[in-house]
Amino acid sequence: MNFFVAEFLGTFLLILMGSGVVANVVLPGTKGTQSGWMVITTAWAFGVFIGVVVAGPYSGAHINPAVSLALAITGDFAWELLWIYIPAQILGAACGALLAYIIYKDHFAKTDDPALIFAPFATAPAIRNKTSNFTSEVVGTFVLIIVILYSTPPALLNEANTPIGLGSLGALPVAILVWVIGLSLGGTTGYAINPARDLGPRIVHQLLPIKGKGSSDWSYSWIPILGPALGAALAAGVYLLLE
Amino acid sequence: MNFFVAEFLGTFLLILMGSGVVANVVLPGTKGTQSGWMVITTAWAFGVFIGVVVAGPYSGAHINPAVSLALAITGDFAWELLWIYIPAQILGAACGALLAYIIYKDHFAKTDDPALIFAPFATAPAIRNKTSNFTSEVVGTFVLIIVILYSTPPALLNEANTPIGLGSLGALPVAILVWVIGLSLGGTTGYAINPARDLGPRIVHQLLPIKGKGSSDWSYSWIPILGPALGAALAAGVYLLLE
Amino acid sequence: MNFFVAEFLGTFLLILMGSGVVANVVLPGTKGTQSGWMVITTAWAFGVFIGVVVAGPYSGAHINPAVSLALAITGDFAWELLWIYIPAQILGAACGALLAYIIYKDHFAKTDDPALIFAPFATAPAIRNKTSNFTSEVVGTFVLIIVILYSTPPALLNEANTPIGLGSLGALPVAILVWVIGLSLGGTTGYAINPARDLGPRIVHQLLPIKGKGSSDWSYSWIPILGPALGAALAAGVYLLLE
Amino acid sequence: MNFFVAEFLGTFLLILMGSGVVANVVLPGTKGTQSGWMVITTAWAFGVFIGVVVAGPYSGAHINPAVSLALAITGDFAWELLWIYIPAQILGAACGALLAYIIYKDHFAKTDDPALIFAPFATAPAIRNKTSNFTSEVVGTFVLIIVILYSTPPALLNEANTPIGLGSLGALPVAILVWVIGLSLGGTTGYAINPARDLGPRIVHQLLPIKGKGSSDWSYSWIPILGPALGAALAAGVYLLLE
Repeated sequence: MNFFVAEFLGTFLLILMGSGVVANVVLPGTKGTQSGWMVITTAWAFGVFIGVVVAGPYSGAHINPAVSLALAITGDFAWELLWIYIPAQILGAACGALLAYIIYKDHFAKTDDPALIFAPFATAPAIRNKTSNFTSEVVGTFVLIIVILYSTPPALLNEANTPIGLGSLGALPVAILVWVIGLSLGGTTGYAINPARDLGPRIVHQLLPIKGKGSSDWSYSWIPILGPALGAALAAGVYLLLE
Repeated sequence: MNFFVAEFLGTFLLILMGSGVVANVVLPGTKGTQSGWMVITTAWAFGVFIGVVVAGPYSGAHINPAVSLALAITGDFAWELLWIYIPAQILGAACGALLAYIIYKDHFAKTDDPALIFAPFATAPAIRNKTSNFTSEVVGTFVLIIVILYSTPPALLNEANTPIGLGSLGALPVAILVWVIGLSLGGTTGYAINPARDLGPRIVHQLLPIKGKGSSDWSYSWIPILGPALGAALAAGVYLLLE
Repeated sequence: MNFFVAEFLGTFLLILMGSGVVANVVLPGTKGTQSGWMVITTAWAFGVFIGVVVAGPYSGAHINPAVSLALAITGDFAWELLWIYIPAQILGAACGALLAYIIYKDHFAKTDDPALIFAPFATAPAIRNKTSNFTSEVVGTFVLIIVILYSTPPALLNEANTPIGLGSLGALPVAILVWVIGLSLGGTTGYAINPARDLGPRIVHQLLPIKGKGSSDWSYSWIPILGPALGAALAAGVYLLLE
Repeated sequence: MNFFVAEFLGTFLLILMGSGVVANVVLPGTKGTQSGWMVITTAWAFGVFIGVVVAGPYSGAHINPAVSLALAITGDFAWELLWIYIPAQILGAACGALLAYIIYKDHFAKTDDPALIFAPFATAPAIRNKTSNFTSEVVGTFVLIIVILYSTPPALLNEANTPIGLGSLGALPVAILVWVIGLSLGGTTGYAINPARDLGPRIVHQLLPIKGKGSSDWSYSWIPILGPALGAALAAGVYLLLE
């Protein structure tokens, strides 16, 4: 897999799981209907897990433009690769949301509440307040990035003293990180903390002809893009300062 | 343990846990009655965990015909062994469901709702729609297989440069994978994603003389067989294409 | 720590957590009241985790007479040590339950339902039926022991080619095993699967002068002792047969 | 990062997660409102996880004065460093709670129940009883410290026979430990088990001009300070005795 395919596939898997779990929890008649915040946050966390497992060895598994941006700022990632990574992430997110919609479309058809129809696609704030919502996304992403930057790989060495890894299990720490961000900071805006996660599916919601759907809420859409970007930049800045 | 015994025992443990948790959650009067989707998906995930722990060193722990099929397609498994693995998996699944029934039979006796009596055995769709249900099983199994194929074992090497493992902890990634598939994609059909998991217990439901039981729903039974088979084949195909 | 102290401390921690979580969930007015089966099973699993972390390096962390018995049968443990391990386990369990009672005693005082007062101490079946209840305990313990016997330690080697471990993280597989047994098979009898876990706290319930307490239900008490013993023996037998 | 910055940042992350999840669960209108004890305890556990991931390599990640005290008693930590660690922990906790308040302030504004407004800051007992509450904090912290003291790092050795680690995954055992303490022993006092976790946010609650807030309950405030201190000292004492 090249960078584009890896980031596409990793983000596709993440959003298929993420959109899927929201559909399962909020739509009527599913087996997981109304099963709560624990179900939602666990699935997003493990969606990250499987995305990282698949994409990790090929692209480093950013699967989030905020991660790519932060690593570019810290000098751990080439700026020009953003033009490959970010489109792949947005396209992967869009396809993941589309496939989740296809799987759950009989359940989408059972509701005519536009908010429920929208929820599996993109984030919407619990209380609409630009300043608070933007702050939530900045802080959530700051935590995501600062912990990623300070994470340490397993210090296992092979015969040649080269560091080697734990295999797929090595994706667990970042999954736990996303889990706790969702549990703790997700209550206000639904924790986009990833511009591609929000923008890709929002475009799909705009384009799909779903009966009873409402607005794709573009007036809000800049917050889950610029909030994570600023949060990532702040975290990268703090990291560079403390180095 | 030879291949047959290992696959039998691994799948037996998986389905004992899986049928058991559904009985615990859906039947009246149990200690876990109505405890929700998180309980069900966690137990299925960790049912996979213990099945893989036990069977892993002996058979590779497929415990799912879709896994065996995919590995045969990718060339990592001998086609002729399917004749050993798949019967062992179906028989193990049947015995696991039977034992779960025996444990919970006083609780089965407390309901006369045929849907509740059926649930611990095999899958039934939330909304019956052949195309959607089939798609759900294809996609769920595609995710299962593609992530398994791209999983990486711990890159630990011994003195002889042979990869060595994490022991039982190495079964955790596939358990997390099954966990998130259940949470996110299980809301429509109950995520068979394993033909043996569905067929074996369905046969047991057909044969057991349970008071108040309804149909074993054979008209649906091809979906959790062919859906996973197609999903596995697609994932193996994508894997070979990207190689 | 010698064997006695290690088994005492490990089982003490296990039952302090186990009795504690049941008190938290079933008694009125606690912060976790009515928080459900997931809370109970998770805490029992991680109670095993911390017991194994502490006792592991000193006694092998059986913290369960069924484990000691099975390992004696398979030849991995000296029969005469049962006279040290089992009393330590029962005493540790009794002290753990006593301390959990002390912590939650203001909440015990808020109920006069004898069943709620009894629940944090020992197990009681959801539906009283000697054959079914005994079978449940046999099967639950069979699964516990067979998976433990087939678990593999991490195959990490040090310079001298001696297998070395993962540290405390190595206790995770057995915790996951206990988690899934609780989720899946615990719905009938409350999964004692450990004679010390049931007997020690039952004695404490008998002796403590709790207002409103009912019978300590000694007529049931042989089931969570002999059931686990038989389950352990069967698992050890199957293991020896398949070797 | 020096010791002060590391302990500040680790405790800041812990309390941002901890105050955040309580706000999410208890305040009206959040996405996680009323989502229960499992959500709260999981987030506190993983708040510890990320705090330890970030601070671990720089300060040993005590992020709790009770841990610093215990390690000083056992001789594993220099007494004079308490003057650096403890202020950093209290300040970090205060800042974490302040930021959680800022994120959730629109939801704080939707309630005028002083107990709900207070809950995301500091602990309050379910039943007010000085002896019982103090005992709860002593025992909870005793368990925390005794398990930490007996935890074993991964016994991996590099070429030079120096122990090396699992990277960020090595923070999982202490997170699981905090998880089970919360699930099992947290039902009475809300498990401060960390003087900084309680004192820092309580000061913030006192200082912040929140509409409808009640007392900062200073008459209770010594319990989550002295209880953990005594529990830590007892655990360290037992550890030294058994050595």
